[in-house]
Amino acid sequence: MVYLTGAGPGDPSLITTGALELLRTAEVVLYDRLADPGFLLETPSGCILIDVGKSTGDHTRSQDEINALLLDYGRRYDRVVRLKGGDPFLFGRGGEEAEVLANAGIPFSVVPGVSALLAATAYAGIPITHRGHASSVGVATGHGARGKDGDPVRWRELARGVDTVVVFMGVGALETITGELMAGGMLPDLPAAVIERGATPRQRVITATLTTIADRIREENVNPPALFVCGPSVPLADRIGWYHPGPLAGLTIGVTRPAAQSKSFADRLRSLGAQPVMMPTIAVRHTLDRPDVHASMEQLAAFDTIAFSSVNGVDSFFAALERTGRDSRALAGKTLAAIGPATAESLKSRGLKADIEAATFIGEGLL
Amino acid sequence: MVYLTGAGPGDPSLITTGALELLRTAEVVLYDRLADPGFLLETPSGCILIDVGKSTGDHTRSQDEINALLLDYGRRYDRVVRLKGGDPFLFGRGGEEAEVLANAGIPFSVVPGVSALLAATAYAGIPITHRGHASSVGVATGHGARGKDGDPVRWRELARGVDTVVVFMGVGALETITGELMAGGMLPDLPAAVIERGATPRQRVITATLTTIADRIREENVNPPALFVCGPSVPLADRIGWYHPGPLAGLTIGVTRPAAQSKSFADRLRSLGAQPVMMPTIAVRHTLDRPDVHASMEQLAAFDTIAFSSVNGVDSFFAALERTGRDSRALAGKTLAAIGPATAESLKSRGLKADIEAATFIGEGLL
Repeated sequence: MVYLTGAGPGDPSLITTGALELLRTAEVVLYDRLADPGFLLETPSGCILIDVGKSTGDHTRSQDEINALLLDYGRRYDRVVRLKGGDPFLFGRGGEEAEVLANAGIPFSVVPGVSALLAATAYAGIPITHRGHASSVGVATGHGARGKDGDPVRWRELARGVDTVVVFMGVGALETITGELMAGGMLPDLPAAVIERGATPRQRVITATLTTIADRIREENVNPPALFVCGPSVPLADRIGWYHPGPLAGLTIGVTRPAAQSKSFADRLRSLGAQPVMMPTIAVRHTLDRPDVHASMEQLAAFDTIAFSSVNGVDSFFAALERTGRDSRALAGKTLAAIGPATAESLKSRGLKADIEAATFIGEGLL
Repeated sequence: MVYLTGAGPGDPSLITTGALELLRTAEVVLYDRLADPGFLLETPSGCILIDVGKSTGDHTRSQDEINALLLDYGRRYDRVVRLKGGDPFLFGRGGEEAEVLANAGIPFSVVPGVSALLAATAYAGIPITHRGHASSVGVATGHGARGKDGDPVRWRELARGVDTVVVFMGVGALETITGELMAGGMLPDLPAAVIERGATPRQRVITATLTTIADRIREENVNPPALFVCGPSVPLADRIGWYHPGPLAGLTIGVTRPAAQSKSFADRLRSLGAQPVMMPTIAVRHTLDRPDVHASMEQLAAFDTIAFSSVNGVDSFFAALERTGRDSRALAGKTLAAIGPATAESLKSRGLKADIEAATFIGEGLL
């Protein structure tokens, strides 16, 4: 059985209990680039983890290659989880993968997830429907609006047909999209917003109007993933926007504690707005060859801070570095944090100075 | 803090881990009519449970009354969960409730949920977006299409603007809606479907065309809640529709086991397609006055079968019946199942014959 599974939008509390249970009993997980790689830590020891995301590593896998992997693992294993950000059927290509599996006679299920459509807007305080103001929503992809080979979305007609418009993958072509929506009759001063990394601790909400939003996101240097939304309930963001990333917002912090201990520490980091990435290098025997450790090493560039929680953590981290053909130079520009003097000493023995040193021996001292 | 929380569409595995955690630590839960009342069993002992649903009891609460309750409990308690089916911001009136709370200065959070928009369609095997076929989706409410006081949805323009149309609460006015969509240019033979009780074991999927769907759902006697969807990817339901309710589909079965024991039994019932409703009457002291027990009694009419798992269960059930001003006559037309001869004997002493008697002493024997 292959489970086409939505992981939700990024906030790990927004995964469904069903998806989490699947991860905990999976034999194989094929995952896209996820907002929170911590989900992979939920998989049992020995689970085969395959990164099929488009943005890591040198090679980007095509959908055909992903389909081939699904068929291959789907034939050989009973519990294959195809984990996608958000929801598998809303701009998630789950429909294509389901067709491929159905054609090959491989049984599958679909596990819907919380889409960014709902999560990013909810975290921004923008109800996409609202009694009296917004009784219809149009959801479209901006992917084809970049003038590649014909845009499948009829933006002008969309503008006439719905109260709220939400666009996935529209940031790169926002000027075209807003221009078309206005050409379709949406008012130039209609409230509009772009939500960058919605429902994650790095969320940013830029509000403006249809006329000004494209310029605003250029000024603010907004990058994908981001969701565009315009409509009469966008201004509610000022009044009911309830989500405020904490003081560590914007920081990605690698945590080298063993998985069992790292969760509460990670929760605390997350509540302060940081993005914890578990690097469970301590149980060396079990985890050094786990693909998620390798993936963490591949993604080192994305970390701002690495927190070492023990001498073991330091040892294991460097073992993993070495295994993946790296050395201390991969840490250039990163803040190193150590919990306890022995950990700091261990870093020192490798020629590295802890930038932050926690006096207490528990990780919370760092905060 | 008030948590405006989505419970998901009905399948209890589609609640988010965050929503479940909130229920488990809630002081107060204000809930709508839910597809699975079993969620209420997750609340801690002593939690105040308030049914604000529109369809149970004699009195139907207005939104103003619900808002007043939210303010009242929100001022007095730290962990108030406002539990809604699906998602709170997609036709869930969460925006209104957030405004009321914000205006009163009561802190709140929004916990998005899996909407029927995604769940019912996924369970029916209908990807609402599909590369090459469906790049845009329009979502609207059919509530205003019943000719009450002006329809806020521009159906004809919607038909021109999107590839897939999804309508909530549209069953009562489907002829009007499909007529308008065709007047807007959607083809009469465009594939269309109605999903009744989507993503629950009672799910039914009726497929037809825009011209014929309204007649088909009358023939099939489809009732709310149901979701209408039309568009080019609807026919995929035949090929990738993966969800098939089990042999007990359509049965609502009350389970009188204590909460702790009833979950695995309920899971098994659910996997066979039945809709288990926990009636944890055994821990008499704790639960007899729990609103969910009272609610179960209110909803007795909806049960097809009542499964008694012990003599205690029989005793408690009748105590609850009596407390709510009922007697055995409320069981007219229902199938009574007993696990073990003592349980059957206990029913007999009350003048009731067990229609089904499981030889083994564990509930699974019934199945």
